[in-house]
Amino acid sequence: MKMRIVVIGANAAGAKAASKAKRINPHAEVTLVDRGNFISYGACGIPYYVSDTVADVKELMSTPVGVVRDASFFNKVKGVKVLTGTEAVAINREVRTVELLETSTARRYVLDYDRLVLATGSTPFLPSFDNNNLQGILTVKSIEDAELLKSHAVAGKQACIVGAGLIGLETAEALRQKGLDVTVMEMRDQVLPGVLDAEMAALVEKHLRMNGVRVMTSCRVTGFTGAGRVEGVIADKGGVAAQLVVVAPGVRPNSGLAREAGLEIGATGAIAVDSRMQTSDPRIFACGDCCESLHLVTGGKVFVPLGSTANKQGRVAGINAAGGEATFPGILGTSILKVFTINAGKTGLTEAEAKACGYGVETVLSPAPDKAHFFPGARPIALKIVAERETGRILGLQAVGEGAVDKRLDAAAAAITFKATADQLSQLDLAYAPPYSAAMDNLIVAADILKNKLAGHARGISAGEVKRKLDEGDDFILLDVRSPAEHAEVGIEGAKLIPLGALREKLDSLPRDKEIVTFCKISLRGYEAQKILDGAGFGKTRFLDGGIMMWPYELRRG
Amino acid sequence: MKMRIVVIGANAAGAKAASKAKRINPHAEVTLVDRGNFISYGACGIPYYVSDTVADVKELMSTPVGVVRDASFFNKVKGVKVLTGTEAVAINREVRTVELLETSTARRYVLDYDRLVLATGSTPFLPSFDNNNLQGILTVKSIEDAELLKSHAVAGKQACIVGAGLIGLETAEALRQKGLDVTVMEMRDQVLPGVLDAEMAALVEKHLRMNGVRVMTSCRVTGFTGAGRVEGVIADKGGVAAQLVVVAPGVRPNSGLAREAGLEIGATGAIAVDSRMQTSDPRIFACGDCCESLHLVTGGKVFVPLGSTANKQGRVAGINAAGGEATFPGILGTSILKVFTINAGKTGLTEAEAKACGYGVETVLSPAPDKAHFFPGARPIALKIVAERETGRILGLQAVGEGAVDKRLDAAAAAITFKATADQLSQLDLAYAPPYSAAMDNLIVAADILKNKLAGHARGISAGEVKRKLDEGDDFILLDVRSPAEHAEVGIEGAKLIPLGALREKLDSLPRDKEIVTFCKISLRGYEAQKILDGAGFGKTRFLDGGIMMWPYELRRG
Repeated sequence: MKMRIVVIGANAAGAKAASKAKRINPHAEVTLVDRGNFISYGACGIPYYVSDTVADVKELMSTPVGVVRDASFFNKVKGVKVLTGTEAVAINREVRTVELLETSTARRYVLDYDRLVLATGSTPFLPSFDNNNLQGILTVKSIEDAELLKSHAVAGKQACIVGAGLIGLETAEALRQKGLDVTVMEMRDQVLPGVLDAEMAALVEKHLRMNGVRVMTSCRVTGFTGAGRVEGVIADKGGVAAQLVVVAPGVRPNSGLAREAGLEIGATGAIAVDSRMQTSDPRIFACGDCCESLHLVTGGKVFVPLGSTANKQGRVAGINAAGGEATFPGILGTSILKVFTINAGKTGLTEAEAKACGYGVETVLSPAPDKAHFFPGARPIALKIVAERETGRILGLQAVGEGAVDKRLDAAAAAITFKATADQLSQLDLAYAPPYSAAMDNLIVAADILKNKLAGHARGISAGEVKRKLDEGDDFILLDVRSPAEHAEVGIEGAKLIPLGALREKLDSLPRDKEIVTFCKISLRGYEAQKILDGAGFGKTRFLDGGIMMWPYELRRG
Repeated sequence: MKMRIVVIGANAAGAKAASKAKRINPHAEVTLVDRGNFISYGACGIPYYVSDTVADVKELMSTPVGVVRDASFFNKVKGVKVLTGTEAVAINREVRTVELLETSTARRYVLDYDRLVLATGSTPFLPSFDNNNLQGILTVKSIEDAELLKSHAVAGKQACIVGAGLIGLETAEALRQKGLDVTVMEMRDQVLPGVLDAEMAALVEKHLRMNGVRVMTSCRVTGFTGAGRVEGVIADKGGVAAQLVVVAPGVRPNSGLAREAGLEIGATGAIAVDSRMQTSDPRIFACGDCCESLHLVTGGKVFVPLGSTANKQGRVAGINAAGGEATFPGILGTSILKVFTINAGKTGLTEAEAKACGYGVETVLSPAPDKAHFFPGARPIALKIVAERETGRILGLQAVGEGAVDKRLDAAAAAITFKATADQLSQLDLAYAPPYSAAMDNLIVAADILKNKLAGHARGISAGEVKRKLDEGDDFILLDVRSPAEHAEVGIEGAKLIPLGALREKLDSLPRDKEIVTFCKISLRGYEAQKILDGAGFGKTRFLDGGIMMWPYELRRG
């Protein structure tokens, strides 16, 4: 008898699993079930459809050559039977059936399976705000959401985004581009919590403000005002008027069907799977946003729903369901977003995450151009490396800037996958020519600074700590080692100027008993100054991590 | 007594070694010697200075904040004494001295060293052509060369570049942008030999022609015509008129000084060093273009001079010379160039190199957009992965296209460094959002195809082999599985059309005993067609590697 494989959920993971299963086992009968009417669409593209960057919603549902991936496509091309508008309401594991509900007709029936693949996805989490059900309060997940949001995105309207995560900020940009007045409210004290550490997030927040987005952090939304239609958002920091609200505080795995069937659910709330994407029932696999993943740095289980991961997991689930053998090793939580002209992302652990996991960490902040500095179009990118102090192992990279941050994230992701140390990262033979990087790519420079720090040659101090010392009136010298011209243009209030080139001659003008904090634009000269002072026997010198470019507080102008 | 460290050569490697040595050992006396008058310049930027992309030559010699790295800079900032216009003519290892010649005064004197670092660089190799010494025959290496070339680069002139390597092609673009009529002559049968395999190089060659550059491959130059000034180039394929000739057939290591001092020279002709950059004399180190490197894939020694490698090696040589401890593991031969609007490069081994090293190889050609296909500005990139068939280990990646090839090269470089297999490459958690890649990045797709090939699921056939079968009139079916519209627009002469969506219904129209070669635009559908035919019991089916997009021969238009 033919093997019957049923796949629940026909977006990235499910569509991939079904297609792959059929290719692996052409004699299997593969059925793909989805409660929606659109299948295999690019949900990540929705903000770009809303902003008119992508003109036709069909583009999100098409192959690169323009074929719409609908039920007929899957049937004819993939040999997969597709049931849309059909909800899976229960799994009977003993008799191996799925109970289905055809939503248009309310017809219920059962489908037999030999192998079942759950790709039920995730749902935006809607906290229990007051007046949640007003018109004009939307989420961003499905094609239907996209159409609704687009119809509401009218220039001049006031919009409020609740949640400054990836989708929240992408949507903020989309609405701003459509001419709306946009406020982003975030419960946590920074944008992109979980993606960036505070000083890196500050760069993104500044960019949002520069582009006319109002950002309110540490701001807890409690409800909405309006009658029938939303008119405003109520928050502990005060309300704002809004005729459009997008709630984007994250998503939750759709693991209810699995839970009711008695399958093991992980501590993350997502379906527990092994490296073969097998659930606690050997005949049932899960993949995509509904299941959890192994984190390759910590070895713990995490819930990080992403289209890229869904495709990889779908492939593995499909192969195993069809009787093949494949494994999915895990993820690094790599995330990225473009917002206006800035790119921001991370791979591996942030400093906050690493500390929460108990690692002793060393960090580096390195802002530098993404191409040779003399090459036209070179744009700054700020990198932050987080490493385990004891071993030098790279735990994570964050990158923010107008330049090519994605390239550095991908190279680091590959390195972190193989447990690279700072030394190994610094020696990577990356592709060099002036249009692509400096002769020493910023990633290499950052890794070199990290090595210097781990070896005790370089000693950094964070902007936050320097700010505290300034505010508390600590007796120390803040030493600007840039040129007089640079110093005149912009600086940190209270700093003393000795250009690096004059430092060796002017050592006598500095007291040997006081703490000295050196800095420059990015702190490569700050580090050189520290080394000169070290060499001259000054005892207590550190350089400001990331220099002026990473100083998140007010600067003296002119 | 102070340790005396002498560094010969003050470009990338030497300048880095001297600075690093001084930072590691502030009490050392570090002297940096160079025969030229310009030090620490970005030689890789010269083509961009010639094309006016970089306006001022000083930018190539400046730090990112605009400070010129001259002798005074090194002295004041780095604490390094610099002797320019000074040639090192001999090393006396017994008494540990270097004999120096001050070129302006012809004064000779000796300098004592405790540790010596050789960073003598490389020199363009000028074959013994007839009339080599005519005016207007130039090389591209020094700042002096750059000025000379720029003064000769006058619109309307005819220029001939001898050698279609990285520098040759960058120079061809620069001269074309200045309005010259440009011919590139290459002895080998393709452009970028050693960087790309033939089918990848064909994409670059096509792009050069589209931009008005005449390309003559398999063309051996024998000499030049002219009296006093060059007037033409003589080659076995016929001559061309040229008032400007740039000879760029590669560089040779400046290892003469080391050789005469009795230091071990490698089979590559470059100075032999260990992983500490130590030569056969434990007091002498070498770094940069004058020494050879370990290839991390083959384990053999290679000569691949590059500014990025020079900086890394200089750091290691400087640390060890100063009494510290550092190692340089090796390189992957990663190379990249931009020429007009195309980017092309490689990391690891090409197929030709891998086969020459005796590897049994499997390859994949995967052309696909560099961003989500629906995202504006998505540009195609063609990837070629070369893997060891037996182990699945990735040996190399080549990438060519208008999109971000550098990103894929860097991720692959990191993976290859850690001996990644096809499966590991396919599971990398790369940064995904529509502005950066497809949900399945082309690198992931290519690795998946490779896995399918290694497992025997996918069976490819190269464009060259298909062309041969067509030319020799082999009895086989060339099956286009694209849409009728795609088929009508462009195709391969002699192909039969059955769109993929109709293939399952039309199996009876195909003979079961004949060989079938399927193809589409990029051959993902071609592969699906192969799987459908496999499933239906057709025995002899393969898909055309890379599809129409990688077909280097003439296509039927309209």
